[in-house]
Amino acid sequence: MASVDNPVLVEVTRGERVESLHRGAFVAVDADGTVVMMAGDVDRPIFPRSAIKLIQALPLIETGAADDCGLGDSELAITGASHSGEPGHVEAASSILTKAGIAPAALECGCHWPMGEDAARRLFCEGVQPNVLHNNCSGKHAGFLCTCGKQGWPTENYVQPDHPMQAAIRDVMTEVTGAAHGPDNMAIDGCSIPTYAIGLTAMARGMAKMASGHGLEPQRAGAAARLMKAAMAEPWYVAGTDRACTAMMKAAAGRLYAKTGAEGVYCGAIPELGIGFALKCDDGTTRAAEAMAAGLVAKLLPSDWLADEMATMARTPIKTRIGAVVGDVRPTGPLG
Amino acid sequence: MASVDNPVLVEVTRGERVESLHRGAFVAVDADGTVVMMAGDVDRPIFPRSAIKLIQALPLIETGAADDCGLGDSELAITGASHSGEPGHVEAASSILTKAGIAPAALECGCHWPMGEDAARRLFCEGVQPNVLHNNCSGKHAGFLCTCGKQGWPTENYVQPDHPMQAAIRDVMTEVTGAAHGPDNMAIDGCSIPTYAIGLTAMARGMAKMASGHGLEPQRAGAAARLMKAAMAEPWYVAGTDRACTAMMKAAAGRLYAKTGAEGVYCGAIPELGIGFALKCDDGTTRAAEAMAAGLVAKLLPSDWLADEMATMARTPIKTRIGAVVGDVRPTGPLG
Repeated sequence: MASVDNPVLVEVTRGERVESLHRGAFVAVDADGTVVMMAGDVDRPIFPRSAIKLIQALPLIETGAADDCGLGDSELAITGASHSGEPGHVEAASSILTKAGIAPAALECGCHWPMGEDAARRLFCEGVQPNVLHNNCSGKHAGFLCTCGKQGWPTENYVQPDHPMQAAIRDVMTEVTGAAHGPDNMAIDGCSIPTYAIGLTAMARGMAKMASGHGLEPQRAGAAARLMKAAMAEPWYVAGTDRACTAMMKAAAGRLYAKTGAEGVYCGAIPELGIGFALKCDDGTTRAAEAMAAGLVAKLLPSDWLADEMATMARTPIKTRIGAVVGDVRPTGPLG
Repeated sequence: MASVDNPVLVEVTRGERVESLHRGAFVAVDADGTVVMMAGDVDRPIFPRSAIKLIQALPLIETGAADDCGLGDSELAITGASHSGEPGHVEAASSILTKAGIAPAALECGCHWPMGEDAARRLFCEGVQPNVLHNNCSGKHAGFLCTCGKQGWPTENYVQPDHPMQAAIRDVMTEVTGAAHGPDNMAIDGCSIPTYAIGLTAMARGMAKMASGHGLEPQRAGAAARLMKAAMAEPWYVAGTDRACTAMMKAAAGRLYAKTGAEGVYCGAIPELGIGFALKCDDGTTRAAEAMAAGLVAKLLPSDWLADEMATMARTPIKTRIGAVVGDVRPTGPLG
């Protein structure tokens, strides 16, 4: 990675000067997988982390587990979420498990304080330690367990690479992204499941397929559309209060799917254009990945109110502690 | 800034791969100002932010204000701090103002939630909003007000560039760093005072002078030594619980001065070698600046227990939510 000089895509200003900068790579493809916009090294294998959770949720729909349990949009949305651990998120993840008849203790994602500062503080005040349901991945893991229940797979060790749940995810990821998934490009994600290093182009193609259905079997195309629609219908469940994915999807009102991943990855799709996109900020910074995502969407959209809104969301003012604006975080270079 | 390709100084791994990377520049100089180690563009003007707070505290000593008020080591340490807003920090900043006979309401730094998560949560539970004393810069501002009191300067608008307090800071910064400070390289810091873009080499030379006294008038050299010794004697007051500056200085037991600044700046000194150093992570990330600082100190020190300790502190394991180590943040390239 060190030898690749990706372009500067976001700059952070103070007064008249650029104080910090963020390099990265991005690519957007159309429904046929043709590149419509790109910059930087988009084929170097990187870990998509949480940015492809929507694809990982396909088996939940395709096995019929979601229908058997009668999961609604908010529950489907949270299976593809990196949520803030707010009470509503905990309820939605919990609800999936209740409907599947599986105890929360079966979740193997581990615990951490809610990502949402307010949620974490409220828990702290109650003298309560966070549990597995507060983990930002608990909805995804609840979906996995629901799938295991339907398929009669053991609910133990479902995070292990040789468990049928992870094999099923590897299969859908391979087919939808077109990239190989195996021991050679595997590492372990923060929630203990495997993550596989693939190119941004493969991720973008996967997102375009999820949005358009092109190149997918009809059943899979239907499952993809259902998941993406649920996420766009219930964006709060995909992230949470004051989170970029939620804010962008809420503003777009069904015209944008957007999903963050750890270490500066961001994936998304613009269904009306059949476009999928993927990006990574080299340094893994969330502020930059979010600015890149909004800036890229603004460039990809036809010139209209939503493009303007995204261009505005791509710029974040930097303020003093008394509220004076002294700089900003903003897309630059090919996204400027 | 975009045209400069600084080297990769820190990499973040997952499994066998580099997942993210951080570029930057660093320079270390000896007591005569001669460069002993460097990489990247060390002369491009950047904002030192909080990393040079120790130099900004010189007027407090030189005017006799610190002695008039009978300030002790913990109080002097906090005048050069970016503290976590823990109760002890609030007490120390408050104590300076009490001794100077000035009300906390005179602080013009603004309010924010304590940087320390635990301190923020405890405040939240008590239903208390943060006040100016919780601002990480409150100790520095209390020192400014104490100086204003001694000099008979107005305590109002002491953050403004044309106030005698800021003129005094400009004068000491210019003399100690050897770099020009004026309207052309000025912007506003987060706590509302001016910050001036200067080269890393100038910052490093300033740190070497503060540590060695070389090239400073005897009175100024004495003030510098007193401030640096106070910071090293009371490192918890310079940052706080679980903070890198505190941990590094505590481990070094008087052999290292270390100070972070916003947007990935880090300054410090190794008094026994007369060395001062300064660095900036291009992307402004704290995890990387801290790894760079510890890695650089490990390289600068003679091979001994402290060098080993700093090399260990420079590497931070990355763990899953169940505690399995799956990667790390570590210095690389010229710092590897």
